[in-house]
Amino acid sequence: MRQVAILGIGQTKVDEHWELSLREIGGNAALAAMQDADVEKVDALFVGNMLSPLVSGQNQLGTYFSDWVGLWHQEAVKVEAACGSGGAALRAGLMAVASGDIESAVVVGVEKMTDKAGHDVTAALATAADADYEVEQGVSFVGLNALIMRRYMHEYGWKHADFACFSINAHANAMHNPFARLHQKINVEQFEKSAMIATPINLLDASPIGDGGAAVVLVPADRVVSLKGRPRITIAGSGSSTDSIAVHSRKDPLFLTAGYQSARRAYEMAGVGPEDIDVFELHDAFSIMSALSLEACGFAERGQGVRLGLEGEISPNGRVPVCTRGGLKARGHPVGATGMYQVVEVVQQLRGECGPTQVEGARLGMTQNIGGSGATILTHILKAE
Amino acid sequence: MRQVAILGIGQTKVDEHWELSLREIGGNAALAAMQDADVEKVDALFVGNMLSPLVSGQNQLGTYFSDWVGLWHQEAVKVEAACGSGGAALRAGLMAVASGDIESAVVVGVEKMTDKAGHDVTAALATAADADYEVEQGVSFVGLNALIMRRYMHEYGWKHADFACFSINAHANAMHNPFARLHQKINVEQFEKSAMIATPINLLDASPIGDGGAAVVLVPADRVVSLKGRPRITIAGSGSSTDSIAVHSRKDPLFLTAGYQSARRAYEMAGVGPEDIDVFELHDAFSIMSALSLEACGFAERGQGVRLGLEGEISPNGRVPVCTRGGLKARGHPVGATGMYQVVEVVQQLRGECGPTQVEGARLGMTQNIGGSGATILTHILKAE
Repeated sequence: MRQVAILGIGQTKVDEHWELSLREIGGNAALAAMQDADVEKVDALFVGNMLSPLVSGQNQLGTYFSDWVGLWHQEAVKVEAACGSGGAALRAGLMAVASGDIESAVVVGVEKMTDKAGHDVTAALATAADADYEVEQGVSFVGLNALIMRRYMHEYGWKHADFACFSINAHANAMHNPFARLHQKINVEQFEKSAMIATPINLLDASPIGDGGAAVVLVPADRVVSLKGRPRITIAGSGSSTDSIAVHSRKDPLFLTAGYQSARRAYEMAGVGPEDIDVFELHDAFSIMSALSLEACGFAERGQGVRLGLEGEISPNGRVPVCTRGGLKARGHPVGATGMYQVVEVVQQLRGECGPTQVEGARLGMTQNIGGSGATILTHILKAE
Repeated sequence: MRQVAILGIGQTKVDEHWELSLREIGGNAALAAMQDADVEKVDALFVGNMLSPLVSGQNQLGTYFSDWVGLWHQEAVKVEAACGSGGAALRAGLMAVASGDIESAVVVGVEKMTDKAGHDVTAALATAADADYEVEQGVSFVGLNALIMRRYMHEYGWKHADFACFSINAHANAMHNPFARLHQKINVEQFEKSAMIATPINLLDASPIGDGGAAVVLVPADRVVSLKGRPRITIAGSGSSTDSIAVHSRKDPLFLTAGYQSARRAYEMAGVGPEDIDVFELHDAFSIMSALSLEACGFAERGQGVRLGLEGEISPNGRVPVCTRGGLKARGHPVGATGMYQVVEVVQQLRGECGPTQVEGARLGMTQNIGGSGATILTHILKAE
């Protein structure tokens, strides 16, 4: 397949955007990416979004955004894979440009969640789980993750406080990201004392929802001419994989098989392994997912993802820097947009634009975006040349 | 881009399927297509669907179906473009196989609509329109189409009865399609006397909703070896285009610019023109859309699409056979599935399997799938070799 480059990036701050409509949030991100790429028009627009039918009463988001950003009569479509929607939209745009049928695309992940009260959003998020066999029993999305975390602690002997390292790192890094929702350092004591949501997951294990949009412009790599002194950034690897949608149907609910498979495919395409990755934006919707993602991608042995955090290896100057811009935990988790925030943030790292949380000499960055409780997982590897 | 072939097809009857869940309807269609193609596994699954979050409380349909049909750990994703979701899913699958990254895919369009009462589905369908600037004013989806039809009749001088030809043809053809929802011939008198829905659209101008699923298996064309005595069917042309999501924003609401643009792209890719098309499965959600689609694709002059019907040119032995298996009007319109039913039906025509409604010697077939009131339009050209 034809090699594809990321020519521009754009994002809005993750926040409660009462002042902005859904179309403004996503549109602003797309327009920012097009401006960053110095292009006024692209052949196609791909949107990653999960909740707009339920929260905004709006379907057909492809056209909704191509209309708003002035891409008259261009191709546009929405891609959905629950909280993996952003990564899935990137992959759809990648396939279209790689096929040779189109010459450019803007991919935007967007979500507007805070207009509705808490119960509505909790119910809407539960549509990522199996409606017939999970949600019907009354389980919520955080409830499913709590079951996984409890079992993990039991199997591998970790205490709840051991997971604090993930949230502390994310909050510390978000201090230097103006687009992050939370700018507030936390410590182990605060982590342990925060309000319980679904035992053992408390408020500081969980990422906050939010309104936000993030976007990139894709072009064939050989068409990148003006670089503004930046490295050329290509999508060197891309993999997508699934697991059973219901957690109880998995042979081993403590291993993200879809994460392993999608990472394997991305590594193979890029011709690299975990030891080559300089920065890894993982999907820390809940702290347990950080551990599982590190293990699935080959950075830690089974049950030992937590150890990487405890040993300080996940900070920007560690062996496997994660959540360098705040992660889902502190940058925020506007669900369908998250996968695209991860991509934008890795590009920022590869461009060397991350200030105090810059990973020195970062050349290879990876994102892993998770839909459902590990049901759809997309992994992308970006390379600076 | 690499040429892609359709190796197998599958569909369920469009009906009120109280006895089948969403996953069974789509899963059965996907499995039927895989059986028809003689494959047990494919690399990826693409789902076209519009309403499942609203009607079934279920998101993440990619994984939902890959899980159900036994495609463990394969790639899976949902694509949404309102009533154009089926065609959009086909195009996403096409791009992925054409890129060379995957070697096979099943594409399924699916919708389960009849579980909810009428008002819920009417409100859910309205999410295809602009929530802020159309739906907020109280307009329904049929209301928008009624405005377009009324203006068309005014501009070009057609009477309501002139549109009967489209519905009569569709109902007559559906008599020979066991997968069609309606098996009932109609005449002009019945057409004129049927119940009014939104003036001038009455019940026999409008397609019925329904539950249904339709699917195809895609592979690189050069990998097609076993043909079972059938022709090799390739996707010779594919085009996608958009218009403003709100009808009132269009410079000319009586011309499907997105239909014209997507058809132009498909014609160019296939190296053919409207004069070469043997059979055309168009998107007759309402009779007015048949006329507009014929005009946008170059089969009739502006305002003269109706004349083609009145002159008998749209029947299976006419110059431009449309709705040869019943169309949306009589096969039924399970919205996110419709685009895939069109593709399956064109394949049946190219295989010569359509009995009394077979278009003699059909070698080139076209589908046009419309999302919203002309906002997202996908055109595909299939070729028998």
